[in-house]
Amino acid sequence: MVETTTRDRLVNEAMRLFSEQGYRATSVAQIEKAAGLAPGSGALYHHFKSKEALLAAGIDRQLDRRGAMRDVRALFAGLGDLDTELTLLGRYLFAVLDEETQLLQIAARTPADQSARVAAAYAALVDGLCAELADWIAGWAPHLAAADAQRIAVVAVNALLGNRAGRMLYRGVGAQLADEEYLSEWTTLLAVRIRA
Amino acid sequence: MVETTTRDRLVNEAMRLFSEQGYRATSVAQIEKAAGLAPGSGALYHHFKSKEALLAAGIDRQLDRRGAMRDVRALFAGLGDLDTELTLLGRYLFAVLDEETQLLQIAARTPADQSARVAAAYAALVDGLCAELADWIAGWAPHLAAADAQRIAVVAVNALLGNRAGRMLYRGVGAQLADEEYLSEWTTLLAVRIRA
Repeated sequence: MVETTTRDRLVNEAMRLFSEQGYRATSVAQIEKAAGLAPGSGALYHHFKSKEALLAAGIDRQLDRRGAMRDVRALFAGLGDLDTELTLLGRYLFAVLDEETQLLQIAARTPADQSARVAAAYAALVDGLCAELADWIAGWAPHLAAADAQRIAVVAVNALLGNRAGRMLYRGVGAQLADEEYLSEWTTLLAVRIRA
Repeated sequence: MVETTTRDRLVNEAMRLFSEQGYRATSVAQIEKAAGLAPGSGALYHHFKSKEALLAAGIDRQLDRRGAMRDVRALFAGLGDLDTELTLLGRYLFAVLDEETQLLQIAARTPADQSARVAAAYAALVDGLCAELADWIAGWAPHLAAADAQRIAVVAVNALLGNRAGRMLYRGVGAQLADEEYLSEWTTLLAVRIRA
């Protein structure tokens, strides 16, 4: 096992607490305690100048992972089969959302007016996924106007976001299908629309 | 203006506080104060035997409204034009979700293990919307298997839920379109799929 530094532990525990309770409701003392430091000692400030700086470090770490996943996506482009590529894209988009569960939960539990940083990170995530999908659609469907490709992408990403919001926030109650079944219908809907 | 009773005020303020803070984080004293009663006096218990009973009354009120909206939906069935009916259905589903914003927020901020009642109400809402849409799809597309109609409906309802989750929890940041633009693409996606 890789040894985790105090700094890493602080980021891990802070992001976990922010996602469970929201950013504002989480105190520096709680983070210190969860990371194994003396609560209320101010030991956190040897590593981060503020709770805000700790949040920024957590968000940066998420963005790093996001970049790594985007690099992998390039590997399955150009297969030449619309349905196969779309299925892989759907799995990829779900994987990114799952990787970003903490960020989505923090955003859900931290009103935008409490942290512009969280709101901006959420917007960048969703806008980025929509742009990736819109680019791919435009590549397969040169007959579509760019605005149409964008609109299709927004509805498609929201369909995945709605699925994960249901699972994440509401603990999977409600009419949910298994991922492969859900993605199969998602793929069919989009493929028929793109070919139309 | 209609005069509100103390009982109504308690339900209104409780549902507002539950949706902002979650069910467990809201105290009886807070509800009393918000409803204009002496906080901590126990005056709430003259009207409801527990915080749980107050939540139940709030959920029942939401279910009432939901029933009323379902009655209205019947009015625009049988127009005979798939695109028109689908557009109206999309607006209706958005309207129901908007009417149920409080319930969705309470569910988002109240983990399922803290209130089975909230989780059940959320599940009934989403399952009900999926069933309504699946019925309508099955009526228009007798060539589709019932399971396909159901799957299309689940993805379609999630696309609307994702849109509203983004707007509600994340205060509308991220790649969102105006409702009519969003519904127009949602309708096209579904219409092409149903006709295929």
